[in-house]
Amino acid sequence: MNVAIIVIGDELLIGQVTDTNSGFIARHIAPYGWQVVNVQVVADDADCISRAMDRAFALAPVVLTTGGLGPTKDDITKGVMCRYFGGELIEDSEVLDNVKNIFKKRGLKLNDLTRSQAMVPSSCKVIQNRVGTAPIMWFNHVHPNGASQVLVSMPGVPFETAEMFTSEVFPRLRAFFPSDLDVEHRTMVVADISESDLATRLEGFEAQLPQGFHLAYLPKPGIIRLRLDAMGNDRSVILPMLDEQWAKLTEEVGDNLLWNGDAEPAEILLKELDKRALTVATAESCTGGNIAHLITLVPGSSSAMLGGVVSYANTVKTHVLGVNADVINSLGAVSIPVAEQMAEGVRGITHADIAMSTSGIAGPGGAVPGKPVGTVCIAVATPWGTISGEYHFPGSRSRVIDRATQTALILAIRQLQKH
Amino acid sequence: MNVAIIVIGDELLIGQVTDTNSGFIARHIAPYGWQVVNVQVVADDADCISRAMDRAFALAPVVLTTGGLGPTKDDITKGVMCRYFGGELIEDSEVLDNVKNIFKKRGLKLNDLTRSQAMVPSSCKVIQNRVGTAPIMWFNHVHPNGASQVLVSMPGVPFETAEMFTSEVFPRLRAFFPSDLDVEHRTMVVADISESDLATRLEGFEAQLPQGFHLAYLPKPGIIRLRLDAMGNDRSVILPMLDEQWAKLTEEVGDNLLWNGDAEPAEILLKELDKRALTVATAESCTGGNIAHLITLVPGSSSAMLGGVVSYANTVKTHVLGVNADVINSLGAVSIPVAEQMAEGVRGITHADIAMSTSGIAGPGGAVPGKPVGTVCIAVATPWGTISGEYHFPGSRSRVIDRATQTALILAIRQLQKH
Repeated sequence: MNVAIIVIGDELLIGQVTDTNSGFIARHIAPYGWQVVNVQVVADDADCISRAMDRAFALAPVVLTTGGLGPTKDDITKGVMCRYFGGELIEDSEVLDNVKNIFKKRGLKLNDLTRSQAMVPSSCKVIQNRVGTAPIMWFNHVHPNGASQVLVSMPGVPFETAEMFTSEVFPRLRAFFPSDLDVEHRTMVVADISESDLATRLEGFEAQLPQGFHLAYLPKPGIIRLRLDAMGNDRSVILPMLDEQWAKLTEEVGDNLLWNGDAEPAEILLKELDKRALTVATAESCTGGNIAHLITLVPGSSSAMLGGVVSYANTVKTHVLGVNADVINSLGAVSIPVAEQMAEGVRGITHADIAMSTSGIAGPGGAVPGKPVGTVCIAVATPWGTISGEYHFPGSRSRVIDRATQTALILAIRQLQKH
Repeated sequence: MNVAIIVIGDELLIGQVTDTNSGFIARHIAPYGWQVVNVQVVADDADCISRAMDRAFALAPVVLTTGGLGPTKDDITKGVMCRYFGGELIEDSEVLDNVKNIFKKRGLKLNDLTRSQAMVPSSCKVIQNRVGTAPIMWFNHVHPNGASQVLVSMPGVPFETAEMFTSEVFPRLRAFFPSDLDVEHRTMVVADISESDLATRLEGFEAQLPQGFHLAYLPKPGIIRLRLDAMGNDRSVILPMLDEQWAKLTEEVGDNLLWNGDAEPAEILLKELDKRALTVATAESCTGGNIAHLITLVPGSSSAMLGGVVSYANTVKTHVLGVNADVINSLGAVSIPVAEQMAEGVRGITHADIAMSTSGIAGPGGAVPGKPVGTVCIAVATPWGTISGEYHFPGSRSRVIDRATQTALILAIRQLQKH
C-alpha cells in the first residue's frame, strides 16, 4: 500500500526544525508491506497545502499530514481541510475535554487559543489524541477513478505522532485497506570497509538476486547497514528464498560483519556485554560525553553501563583519571599513551570490565604541528589488555565527534567478539 | 528568490536516513532573502525523479537536488538528468582526478564503481567537489514562459553538501539571479512559559505588526524561539521599524527572555560563563553524558568546560563524586539531596565554578512508588550556593533525557544571570 506524506510548517522550510515524522512512519509501516512513495514539505499556506493534497491524492490512496495543528497563528491547516473536504469548523466536546484534562495535569490554565484546538471540521472523524492537545482527523475521499482514499491529519510534535500513529492511526488504516502482499526485510551491520569496496564485492551477489529481491546500502558514520528486501504473494515461498540469499550474503560479507540484525553500535555493544555479563565505562575527552550519551540512550543500559568521566581539561585527566602529568607534558594530551591511561584509569575508578577512551582534536581550533584537526587517539581497556589507535577523521567538529564515538564503540565490540 | 528542493533516495523514504540537507540550505539562504518553498523526497526511480523535477520547475526558478549520486546501484540520478536535459554521459577527466586524489589521501584503492563517479551528462557544467567524490552538476533550463531556471545536483552526504553549497553553489546562484529585496530576521530565546500562554500574551503585539512583518514561534524542548521577520525593498526603511518592533517585543516578553539572539541553551550557558570568566562541570545520572555532549559540541567550549562525571551506577556516585551512601539508601538515588551532592561533588573534584547534576528515571523501566518514569531531580551548584528542583517530564526515554538536559542548562543560565 502506497502512502504519501505532507509535512506542514514554515519552521521546516526555514530549517529551524527537521522532519523526523516521515522517517518514523516509513520505518513503522515497512514490515507490513506499506511504503512511503513521496514526502512533500510545504508552508503554512492554504494554497500550498491544498495543492500538496491534490498531488498526494494523485500518488497514493493513503495521505498522511503532520503539523500545522498548534494553537498559534501560523497554523491554518484545519481551515484548509474544511474547505477541501467540505463541512464547517465545529467545537468537539470530547476534544475540549481532552485539552482541559491535559492542561489540568500539566498545571496550566486554559486560554482562548488553546480552546481553539477543540474546533474541528464537521467532515472528519476525530481520533482522540491521548498524549497532546491537537486532535487527529480522519477524512474519507474518493479518487476521480472511484477508488477509496483516506487522509489523516496528525500533529507535528514527533512523540505525539509516534505514539498516536502506532497505537491508533495505523491499525485503523490497515483495517480500512486490507492487503495480502508479503514483504520481508533482513538487515545486517557491516564495518571496516568502504561503501564502494563493499558494492564491488557484492556485485555478483546482487546480479543473481531473484525477482522481487533487492539489496539496499545504508551507510552511517563508521558502519554500513545492508538490508535485503523480499516481496511476493506467498510467504511460504519467499521465506526459504530469503534464508538462502541471506546465507549467501553473510558468506560474502565475511569478517566485515559486525552484527546480524539492525542495531546501532551502542546497542550492539550492550548486547555483546550482556551475553558475557560484563560492565562498561567511558573516559572521554574530544567526544565530550557522546559515547556515554549514546550508550545510556538505550533502554536497560544501566545493567552494563557503570558511568564515565568527561575529562575535557587536563587537570581532570590527571586528578580524576590518574593520567601521568609528565606524559601529557611530553607527548601532549592527544597521544596513544594518554588515551590508554584514560581508559585504564576509568576502568580502575569505576571497576568496569571494559572501558573506552578518546582524546583528540575535534576542531575547528586546537590543531598543533603533526596533529591536524580530526586527529583522535582511541583506546579500549579490557581484562585481556589494552588496545589503541590513532585516527584521522575528516569534516566538521560534530562529524569528528560522531566518527570518533562510533569508532570507539566498534573497537570495543570487536574486542568483545574476540573473547 | 524561491528555491525548490528535491531530496533523492530510497533510504529517506524507508526512514533509515533523515534529511538534514534541506534544512541546512534553508537556514543558509534565508538571510539573503531566498526561501525554500517546497521540498520533495522521492525514490531512486527515474520516473519519480523526473516528475519531481517537472513540479519543482513549476514552483521555483532554482531547483536543488541532493542525493542519488553515490557509487552503488541505487543511484540513477545522473542518467535521469541526462535524459531530462539532453546530452550523453561522458567521463570528466577533472572529476576522475579528484576521485583518484581523494582515494589516495584516504588510502583506498580505486575500483570500477568509484570510477563511474567521473561520468557526467555532457549538458551540465561540473562544479568540482573538494570534499567528496560525487561531482556537483549545474544545468541551465528555460521555463515555458521563457524565464531562466537552474537545477544544481549535489551529493547527499550532509557535510559535502554543507561545504560545497556555501562555498561554491550558492555564490554562483546569487551571481546568476541578482536581487534587491531586503529581508531581516531577529531571534530571541524565551523560557519558562508555554507556547499557548506566550501566544496569548503576544496577540496584541502581532495584531499591530506593520505590513511585511511576521512573528514566528519555534518551540523546542524547554524553550521557544521567537523570530521577527521584516521584508521590504528599502533596508533604510525596514531597519528602524524592526528596531522599534523588537523593543516592543522584548518588553512584552519581559522576564521570560532567556537570550537576545539565536542560540542553543548550551551556547547561551557558555556565553554567560565567558562573560564572567567562570568554568563549568557536570554530574549526570539519567542524562548519561548528554549535558556534557551538548556543551562540548560548541566550538571553543574547552575555555569554560572542565569536564564531568557520568555517575550511572550508585557506586560511581559514592566513590567518584563522594555522595553519601546512607542518603542514597534512605532517600533513593533519585532525590534532591543526592542531586545536590552530585553537583557539589563534581564541583569539588574538578574545581569548576558551577556544576549541574541530574538524577532521574528516564524509563521505560525503573519507576518506583512515588517516583514515576519522568521524575528527574536537578541541581546547580554555584559559588553563591546550590539550588535544586524535582521535575516530571512526559514522553519517551529520549524525550525525558532531552528535557532534563535542557532544564539543567536553563537553570544554570538563570543562576548566572542573577549574579
